[in-house]
Amino acid sequence: MTNPQVGIIMGSKSDLRVMKAAAEVLEELGVTLELTIVSAHRTPHRMTEYAESARSRGLKVIIAGAGGAAHLPGMVASMTSLPVIGVPVKSSNSIDGWDSVLSILQMPGGVPVATVALDGAKNAGILAAQIIGTFDETVAKNIDVFKVQLREKVEQTIQEVERDGWRHDPA
Amino acid sequence: MTNPQVGIIMGSKSDLRVMKAAAEVLEELGVTLELTIVSAHRTPHRMTEYAESARSRGLKVIIAGAGGAAHLPGMVASMTSLPVIGVPVKSSNSIDGWDSVLSILQMPGGVPVATVALDGAKNAGILAAQIIGTFDETVAKNIDVFKVQLREKVEQTIQEVERDGWRHDPA
Amino acid sequence: MTNPQVGIIMGSKSDLRVMKAAAEVLEELGVTLELTIVSAHRTPHRMTEYAESARSRGLKVIIAGAGGAAHLPGMVASMTSLPVIGVPVKSSNSIDGWDSVLSILQMPGGVPVATVALDGAKNAGILAAQIIGTFDETVAKNIDVFKVQLREKVEQTIQEVERDGWRHDPA
Amino acid sequence: MTNPQVGIIMGSKSDLRVMKAAAEVLEELGVTLELTIVSAHRTPHRMTEYAESARSRGLKVIIAGAGGAAHLPGMVASMTSLPVIGVPVKSSNSIDGWDSVLSILQMPGGVPVATVALDGAKNAGILAAQIIGTFDETVAKNIDVFKVQLREKVEQTIQEVERDGWRHDPA
Amino acid sequence: MTNPQVGIIMGSKSDLRVMKAAAEVLEELGVTLELTIVSAHRTPHRMTEYAESARSRGLKVIIAGAGGAAHLPGMVASMTSLPVIGVPVKSSNSIDGWDSVLSILQMPGGVPVATVALDGAKNAGILAAQIIGTFDETVAKNIDVFKVQLREKVEQTIQEVERDGWRHDPA
Amino acid sequence: MTNPQVGIIMGSKSDLRVMKAAAEVLEELGVTLELTIVSAHRTPHRMTEYAESARSRGLKVIIAGAGGAAHLPGMVASMTSLPVIGVPVKSSNSIDGWDSVLSILQMPGGVPVATVALDGAKNAGILAAQIIGTFDETVAKNIDVFKVQLREKVEQTIQEVERDGWRHDPA
Amino acid sequence: MTNPQVGIIMGSKSDLRVMKAAAEVLEELGVTLELTIVSAHRTPHRMTEYAESARSRGLKVIIAGAGGAAHLPGMVASMTSLPVIGVPVKSSNSIDGWDSVLSILQMPGGVPVATVALDGAKNAGILAAQIIGTFDETVAKNIDVFKVQLREKVEQTIQEVERDGWRHDPA
Amino acid sequence: MTNPQVGIIMGSKSDLRVMKAAAEVLEELGVTLELTIVSAHRTPHRMTEYAESARSRGLKVIIAGAGGAAHLPGMVASMTSLPVIGVPVKSSNSIDGWDSVLSILQMPGGVPVATVALDGAKNAGILAAQIIGTFDETVAKNIDVFKVQLREKVEQTIQEVERDGWRHDPA
Repeated sequence: MTNPQVGIIMGSKSDLRVMKAAAEVLEELGVTLELTIVSAHRTPHRMTEYAESARSRGLKVIIAGAGGAAHLPGMVASMTSLPVIGVPVKSSNSIDGWDSVLSILQMPGGVPVATVALDGAKNAGILAAQIIGTFDETVAKNIDVFKVQLREKVEQTIQEVERDGWRHDPA
Repeated sequence: MTNPQVGIIMGSKSDLRVMKAAAEVLEELGVTLELTIVSAHRTPHRMTEYAESARSRGLKVIIAGAGGAAHLPGMVASMTSLPVIGVPVKSSNSIDGWDSVLSILQMPGGVPVATVALDGAKNAGILAAQIIGTFDETVAKNIDVFKVQLREKVEQTIQEVERDGWRHDPA
Repeated sequence: MTNPQVGIIMGSKSDLRVMKAAAEVLEELGVTLELTIVSAHRTPHRMTEYAESARSRGLKVIIAGAGGAAHLPGMVASMTSLPVIGVPVKSSNSIDGWDSVLSILQMPGGVPVATVALDGAKNAGILAAQIIGTFDETVAKNIDVFKVQLREKVEQTIQEVERDGWRHDPA
Repeated sequence: MTNPQVGIIMGSKSDLRVMKAAAEVLEELGVTLELTIVSAHRTPHRMTEYAESARSRGLKVIIAGAGGAAHLPGMVASMTSLPVIGVPVKSSNSIDGWDSVLSILQMPGGVPVATVALDGAKNAGILAAQIIGTFDETVAKNIDVFKVQLREKVEQTIQEVERDGWRHDPA
Repeated sequence: MTNPQVGIIMGSKSDLRVMKAAAEVLEELGVTLELTIVSAHRTPHRMTEYAESARSRGLKVIIAGAGGAAHLPGMVASMTSLPVIGVPVKSSNSIDGWDSVLSILQMPGGVPVATVALDGAKNAGILAAQIIGTFDETVAKNIDVFKVQLREKVEQTIQEVERDGWRHDPA
Repeated sequence: MTNPQVGIIMGSKSDLRVMKAAAEVLEELGVTLELTIVSAHRTPHRMTEYAESARSRGLKVIIAGAGGAAHLPGMVASMTSLPVIGVPVKSSNSIDGWDSVLSILQMPGGVPVATVALDGAKNAGILAAQIIGTFDETVAKNIDVFKVQLREKVEQTIQEVERDGWRHDPA
Repeated sequence: MTNPQVGIIMGSKSDLRVMKAAAEVLEELGVTLELTIVSAHRTPHRMTEYAESARSRGLKVIIAGAGGAAHLPGMVASMTSLPVIGVPVKSSNSIDGWDSVLSILQMPGGVPVATVALDGAKNAGILAAQIIGTFDETVAKNIDVFKVQLREKVEQTIQEVERDGWRHDPA
Repeated sequence: MTNPQVGIIMGSKSDLRVMKAAAEVLEELGVTLELTIVSAHRTPHRMTEYAESARSRGLKVIIAGAGGAAHLPGMVASMTSLPVIGVPVKSSNSIDGWDSVLSILQMPGGVPVATVALDGAKNAGILAAQIIGTFDETVAKNIDVFKVQLREKVEQTIQEVERDGWRHDPA
C-alpha cells in the first residue's frame, strides 16, 4: 500500500462510530488514509508527536474529530502547517453539540481549523479529498463522479415520488 | 501577474471590511488571488458561472464570505469540486452571528464547506495557503515562517509583561 | 386535472414525512398542487430551472422545505418573483432545528422567504391557500370553513373536559 | 387614492423606525397601503376589530410588526383569513431578538404567520407585493424590475471593486 | 361547591397532561378551582369573554398554560386586572421549550404575566394559592403545612441515604 | 405612613437603576412599599431574616431583583409562604441576561417564583399591585384606571401617526 | 474511619444517580468523604448549618450538585471559606442543562464556585482530590497514577484499533 | 520574595485587562503569585513546559484565562496534577462568550477544569486562595476577613439607600 495521504484521528474509540464515515468516503474517492486514536487530554505527548511528524511522514491533510470541550483539532493545527479538518462530535457528554462546534470552530487568528457540520465526518472525508484533488487529477475526477452520483440519487427519488405519488409513505 | 490560485468572493461590498484580511494574509504568504463580489441571492447566475468555471480558470481554492442566511459558500460548493472555505460574517442583519455560522457550517452530507470562525477571514486565507502548501513547497515554507512569527510575537509580549509587570496597564 | 397553483418542493425524499402535510391541507382547501424533490446542493441546475419557470408554468406560490443549512427556499426566492414559503425541517443532521430556522428566516433585504414554524408544513399549506384566497373567493370561503372547524374541534374538547372532568386521563 | 391593499400595523410608535421600510418599498412597487398602531396587549379590542374587518375593508395582506413577547401577528392571524406577515422587531426590551422571532414564528398548526427576518420590514413589504403580484400583473412587473435593480446595484459594486481594488477602504 | 377562586385554562386538551398538576395542588391546598380549554388562536372570542368576565365571576387568579408561540397567558393578562400566571408548556411543536418560555415571559411594560418554570404547572398552582393566602389565613396555613411536608420528604431521603449508604442504587 | 404591603429587595445598589421602576408604579397604584438591599451571597443571614419575618411584619408580596447567577428570589421564596416576584436583571456580569432569567425562572417543584421579563421591574410592581388588588378594591380600581391609561396613550400615538403620516420621523 | 475530607451534597436523592461518581473516584484516589442530601429550597436551614460548620468539622472541600435553578452550590459558597465545587445536573426539569450550568457558573464577584461540566460529578471528585493533593503527597501521587491509567486506557484502544482495523464495529 | 504559590497565565496580552483582577485579589489575600503569557495555539511547547514543571517549581494552583476556542486551561490541566482554574474571557473574537465558556467548562471525564464565570478573574483569584487556605491558616483567615468586608460593603449601601431613599439616583 502507498503511504497514507490523510490521517484521521479522534479523541476516543467511541467516536469511531461517527468518524469511520470519513475513512469510508476517502476509500471510495481513491485517497489513502490512516486512522488512529489520539487524545488531547489523555495523551498530550502523543498528540504533539503526531502533529509535528505528520508532514514529514507524508500526510497532506489531518482530520480530527472530538466532542464536548473539543481541543484536539485546534491543538493539532497549532503544531503543523498541514490543513486540519475538525469534526465536532455530538458525544454523550456534549450539550446538544454546541460545545463541540464552538470549541473547534472559534479558533483565534493565525491557527485555522476547517470545521464541518456536527457529526459531519463524511463531509470531512470529501473535503480532504477535494484538497488532495487540487493537485491530483485522478482524485479530482473521482470527486466529479461522486457529485454526479449525488445528483443521480436525487433524480432516482424524483422518479419514485412521481411514480408513487406524494401520498405514498416513504418509510 | 501569474494566474490567481485563490478566489475570494463575498455577498456584498460591505463584507469587504471583514474579508480583505483574507487577501492580505494570502499576499503575505505568497499566494496569488482574485477578489470580487458575488451575491447568491441577487446575482444567482453570476454565482453559478463563477463556481462552475473556477476550476477550469485555474483556481485551487475558493473563499466565500456571507452573513445572515448565508447561502453563498454552500451553493458555490455545490457547483464545483474545489475546496470551498466559508467565512461567517457578523453582518448588521445577523442575530449575533448565529445565523451566519449555522447556515454555512451545517451543510448536508456530500457537499462540505470548510468553515472558519465568525469574521475569521484571516484564518480563511491561512487555510487556503495551507491547502496550496500541500503541493507547493514555497508556500509551505512561508507558512512555517508565519507560524514562527506568531510565536515570536507572543514571546515579545512575554518579555513586555516581565519587564513592565502585570500592574502595567496594557492599553 | 387543472394546472397546479402551488408547487411543493423539498431537498430530499426523507423530508416527505414532514412536507406531505402541506399537500394534504391544500387538497382539503381546494387548491391544486404539484410536489417533487429539488435539492439546492445536489441538483442546483434543476433548482434554477424550477424557480425560473415557475411563474410561466402557472404556479402562484412555491412551498420549499429543507433542514440543516437550508438553502433551498432562499435560493428559489432569489430566482422568481412568486412568493416563496419556507418550511424549516428538523432533519436528523440539524442542531435541534436552529440551523434550519435561521438559514431560512434570516434572508437579506430584497429577497424575502415567508417562514413558518419548525416542521410547520401544514401551516405552509394554509398560508399558500390564504395567498390564493386573496383573489379566489372559493378558496377564501374554504379557509373560513376551515377556521370554523378549528374552533369547533376546540369546542368539542371543551365539552369532553366538562363531561369527564380534569382528573380524567386524556391519553 | 384607491383603497389600501396592504395594512401595516405595529404594537407601538417606537416600532415605526423599523416598520416604515415596509411602507416605503410597497410605494416603490406600486401597492397601496395604510399604516397605523395596533397594540395586542394595550388595545386588544381595536386589534380584534382591525383583524375582523380587514378583508371586508378590501385589504389583501396584513403586515404586523412587534417585539419581545410579540403576540400581534399571531393574534391577528387567528381572526382573519387574509395572509398575515409577521416582522420580529428587535425592540429595547427584547433578548437579542430571540423572543420576537420565536413568539411570531412558532405558531400552532392551523394559524400560520409568514415570518420574515429580524427587523426585516423591507422584506415584509416585498413579500406583500409578491402576494398582490400573484393576481396583479402590474405589480408583478414592478417586482421583476425591482429584482433587476437589485442585481444592477451589485454589478455596480463589482465594477467599483474592480476599479478601486480590494485594498481600497470601502468606508 | 363554593365558587372557584382560580381559573385554569390551556390552549389544547393535550396540555392537560402537564396542567392537571396545578389543579391537584390547588385542591390539596384547599383552594377552589375551575379548569377548561381556551385557545388564543382557535377561539379568540371565547378567550376575550373568559378574560373580561373573570373578575366579575369571582375568580381571583388565572393560570394559563400554552406552548410554542404561546399567546394565551399574555392576551388574557391584557384583558383583566387579575394576576395571570403563565405556564410555558414544552409541547411537541416547541423548540426545546425556548419559544414557550420567551413568548410568555417577555411581556411589554404594563401587562405582566407571572411566569413559572417550563412545564411548572404544580408551581403555578402553589403560586396561585400563595396569592389567595395573602388574604385567606386558612390557605396561608395550608401552604405553611405544605412547606413543612416538602422539608420532611427531604429529611426522609436523608435518612434513607444514611441508612443505605451512597453505593445503594436509588432506582 | 401605613405599613408597607410590598417589600422590594435587590442584590446590589447597582440594581436600583432597574428596580426603582417597581417602586414608582406601586406608588402610582396606591400600594405602600419598602425598598432595601439584600444580597443572597454577601448577606445570607440578612436574607434569611428578611424572608422569615416578612409575613409577620405585614408584607403581602416580595419583589426580588438579581442578575447573573441570581439566587435571591428563589432563596427568599424557599423561606416564606408569601408570593415572591423575581426580576431578572441584565447586570454587567450577565451573559446577555440568559443566566439571570434561567436561575430565577427554573425553580424546582414546590417553590415557585413569579418571574417577569428581563429588567421588567415595572411589571413586577404592577403584578404585586394585582395581587394586592385581589382583596383590596381600591387598588383593583387603580389598576383598571392604569389599564385605561395604557390604552389612551396608544390611542394618542395613533392620532399622531394619522396626523403626521408614517413618513414623519418619530425621533 | 478517619474524618471525611470532602463533603458531597445534592439537592435531591434523584441526583445520586449522577453524583455517586464523585464519591467513587474520591475513594479510588484515597480521599475520605461523606455524602448526604441538602436542599437549598426545601431545607434552607440545614444548608446554612451544613455550610457554616463545614470547616470546623474538618472538611477541606465541598462538592454540591443541583439542577434547574441550581442555587445549592452558590449559596453554600456564600457561607463558607472552603472551596466549593459545583456540578450542574441535567435533571428532568432542566432546559437541556443550560439553566443548571448558568445558575452555578455565573456567580458574582467575591463568591466563586468551581464549576465542572454538565453531569461532571467524576471530574468534581478528581478536582477535590487535586485540591487535597496540593498539601497531601499521597493523594498527589494517587492522582499521578490515575493520570497514567487514563493514558494507558487510551493506549489500549489504540492497539485495539490497530489490531482490528477501523472497519471493525466498536459496539 | 517567597516562591509563587499561584501561577496566572493567559493566551494573549490583551487578556491582561481581565486577568489582572486575579493577581490583585491574590495579593490582597496574602498569596504569592506569578503572571505570564502562555498561548496554547501559538506557543504549544511553552505551554507543555509550563504545565509539566508547575508542581516541581512549587506552584499549588494554576489560573488560566482564554477566549473563543479556549484550549489553554484544559490542555494545561491535561499535563499537571495541580488544580487548574479556567477563566472564560469574553474576547473580541468570541460569540458573546458562549464559545469561551463551553470550551473551558465541558472537559471530558478524567481532566477537570475549575471554571468560573465569564470574565470572572477576581473569583478565580479568590478560589485559588481558598484552595491555598485549605492547608494555610493565615490565608484562610484572610478569606474570612475578605468575606466580612464583602458583607460590610453591602451594609454600607443599605444605609445609603435608607438615608437617601430609593428615589435618589445612584449614578
